[in-house]
Amino acid sequence: MALLVQKYGGTSVGTVERIEAVADRVLKHKRQGDDIVVVVSAMSGETNRLIELAKNIQAAPDTREMDVLLSTGEQVTIALLSMALLKRGLDARSYTGSQVRITTDNAHGKARIQKIDTEAMRADIDAGRVIVVAGFQGADELGNITTLGRGGSDTTGVALAAALKADECQIYTDVDGVYTTDPRVVDSARRMDKITFEEMLEMASLGSKVLQIRAVEFAGKYQVPLRVLSSFSEGEGTLITTEENENMEQPAVSGIAFNRNEAKLTLKGVPDTPGIAARILGPISDANIEVDMIVQNVSADGTTDFTFTVDRNDHDKALSILKGIEGELGARTVMSDAKIAKVSIVGVGMRSHAGVASSMFRALAKESINIQLISTSEIKVSVIIGEKYLELAVRALHSAFKLSDSAAGVSEE
Amino acid sequence: MALLVQKYGGTSVGTVERIEAVADRVLKHKRQGDDIVVVVSAMSGETNRLIELAKNIQAAPDTREMDVLLSTGEQVTIALLSMALLKRGLDARSYTGSQVRITTDNAHGKARIQKIDTEAMRADIDAGRVIVVAGFQGADELGNITTLGRGGSDTTGVALAAALKADECQIYTDVDGVYTTDPRVVDSARRMDKITFEEMLEMASLGSKVLQIRAVEFAGKYQVPLRVLSSFSEGEGTLITTEENENMEQPAVSGIAFNRNEAKLTLKGVPDTPGIAARILGPISDANIEVDMIVQNVSADGTTDFTFTVDRNDHDKALSILKGIEGELGARTVMSDAKIAKVSIVGVGMRSHAGVASSMFRALAKESINIQLISTSEIKVSVIIGEKYLELAVRALHSAFKLSDSAAGVSEE
Repeated sequence: MALLVQKYGGTSVGTVERIEAVADRVLKHKRQGDDIVVVVSAMSGETNRLIELAKNIQAAPDTREMDVLLSTGEQVTIALLSMALLKRGLDARSYTGSQVRITTDNAHGKARIQKIDTEAMRADIDAGRVIVVAGFQGADELGNITTLGRGGSDTTGVALAAALKADECQIYTDVDGVYTTDPRVVDSARRMDKITFEEMLEMASLGSKVLQIRAVEFAGKYQVPLRVLSSFSEGEGTLITTEENENMEQPAVSGIAFNRNEAKLTLKGVPDTPGIAARILGPISDANIEVDMIVQNVSADGTTDFTFTVDRNDHDKALSILKGIEGELGARTVMSDAKIAKVSIVGVGMRSHAGVASSMFRALAKESINIQLISTSEIKVSVIIGEKYLELAVRALHSAFKLSDSAAGVSEE
Repeated sequence: MALLVQKYGGTSVGTVERIEAVADRVLKHKRQGDDIVVVVSAMSGETNRLIELAKNIQAAPDTREMDVLLSTGEQVTIALLSMALLKRGLDARSYTGSQVRITTDNAHGKARIQKIDTEAMRADIDAGRVIVVAGFQGADELGNITTLGRGGSDTTGVALAAALKADECQIYTDVDGVYTTDPRVVDSARRMDKITFEEMLEMASLGSKVLQIRAVEFAGKYQVPLRVLSSFSEGEGTLITTEENENMEQPAVSGIAFNRNEAKLTLKGVPDTPGIAARILGPISDANIEVDMIVQNVSADGTTDFTFTVDRNDHDKALSILKGIEGELGARTVMSDAKIAKVSIVGVGMRSHAGVASSMFRALAKESINIQLISTSEIKVSVIIGEKYLELAVRALHSAFKLSDSAAGVSEE
């Protein structure tokens, strides 16, 4: 008898029929003897509907009130799912984030969970009750409603699983697992049975939108086994664990991630003096713009070129900040390009395989794709290329690293 | 400087534009130096949308979960209105029923307010803050979300006004006051400047849907001056107070109320023995059917006829209960009629005017309208007539009691 936390996303509860299907699935697991805590998102479309209402009043509404508004989305779902479970003869009870005592800081719209009081939940579980919790939300110490930010229902699921020491946190979504790359781009993309937290983190942050990155971090930190699976079909999904794959030769590259929502900005000819990076990025971070890649090359003639990427929505704001400071920094010029894409190869096996990066560059060169920027970590290599080459690059890399076969490995040309 | 509790109903906050108009009105009052606590309903249509979702899962959904679901309607409105107030430079803050500590019993769907903790609200008011409270909802001692039942936002407004000792509770709605009767039935129906709590109670319970009856009871009990006025136009509305009208000769009849949602049931020829009424109505009340009029006439030959009215939706259920018990009661037969209507004349002046009832019966007789049942209280006379005569009866009575003129009085034929 296992304790499972099951999280169902917006499309999995998008209609009353879908909610009934979720109830059937919970019933099946319950009958198998498992204890179930369910975490749900707002019905798909609902969050956008609420945002639209608020935007009709003000472009940037008060963040406290925005949380009061958005938290209703999940509240609707917990009530409807509990009704569907009760109809099936299960003892079920819904809880909002504040009712179940998910205490967060007061950073409205992007609150972080500080503690979860599990006592009441334990009593419910011991009584055989299915608990249905609203994802994405909590309350601060004063009782103000907070939200964890978009996609935060995954984080709720993992946090509950960690607090309750659940055997597994199952994330039900509209895909049946984590793929070697986006199947819409590469037909032969393959579902992975297992992936490590580190790999998943790189996949998630690079644009494989299966799981929210904070949830993966959380799961890794608290060693909560995380499984991604489809609420629309049966199947084992993809298990995300700390264990690396021991049963076969570790492939060097597990998957290809990409992101087409970035923009690139460059300050050319800035004096190569200590502290210059901080003086460039300080104003950017003060404006709440998140920076992804940062590349600074070796200096020539006492000046250097400094390049970074931001979310494409922040491009205009970042550019005007750079224009404002280029004079005082003594830069030669500011350049930017929003028509770029990032492609990354990810794999824990890279650590023990030499030559993975050069295999990547060779595969791209063969397709005459120019690499604009390169950035590496222990388990990934990312490049920035022209946006129009994205699909070509992903397919070339997927094939070069033989990811379609289950015995994936480094390509040997 | 007055403390006003302003309650805005569903049509008054039915769109973002209407919410902006409410914010303008609050701003105007605030600029005049008043302190404002706002209570809002769900946007019109929202509650029905939520009920529809639940009914798609189960015809009679769990009442605890229904409250979790329905309470989201008002929560959306408080967030949007607070945003609109903040946009106007007012310091505003939203509170759900549980956040503002409206503690109720745990009768889900029809909970009663037990206490309101005003300390935090007082601090907000003293800080010049506009408080926006979700109507219709609270939480029980354990933190479970409860609702006060349909139309319960009026009750929230009055309860807050009583707890805060507000100078006035203003109920904004889509009509500009309380009328002598429904203007859709009688063109010349007149808005009353003032009406007593007792009269308003009779008008409300008899189908003048302006105010929820519990709110009027509450206001009368705690002597909260209550004003009904339109959120769509300017005007003084109708003030409901304990003071009877002293400035002019008290008219005997203040208004004509009616209700076409009742059904009549009769047990004929039941033995006229002590306890028979309880034996008939016990099973009815056990089935949670509310009884309105009860009429039992003097007995002949040791048997009597026992008639009562219920909401038309409960007709079938009540009839089958009577069929089930008629044998054991020794009744001759059971009859019922759903095509009836109730018409009532209401006025505190009746207490000091003789002949009001007979004027009523004369006016109906003149139109050849047969009276099926009569029931009276100190300040009203109600009759049951055939449903098809309803409009005719209301118009005849409105004219007979000269309610179109501001100097209304007993009709003298």
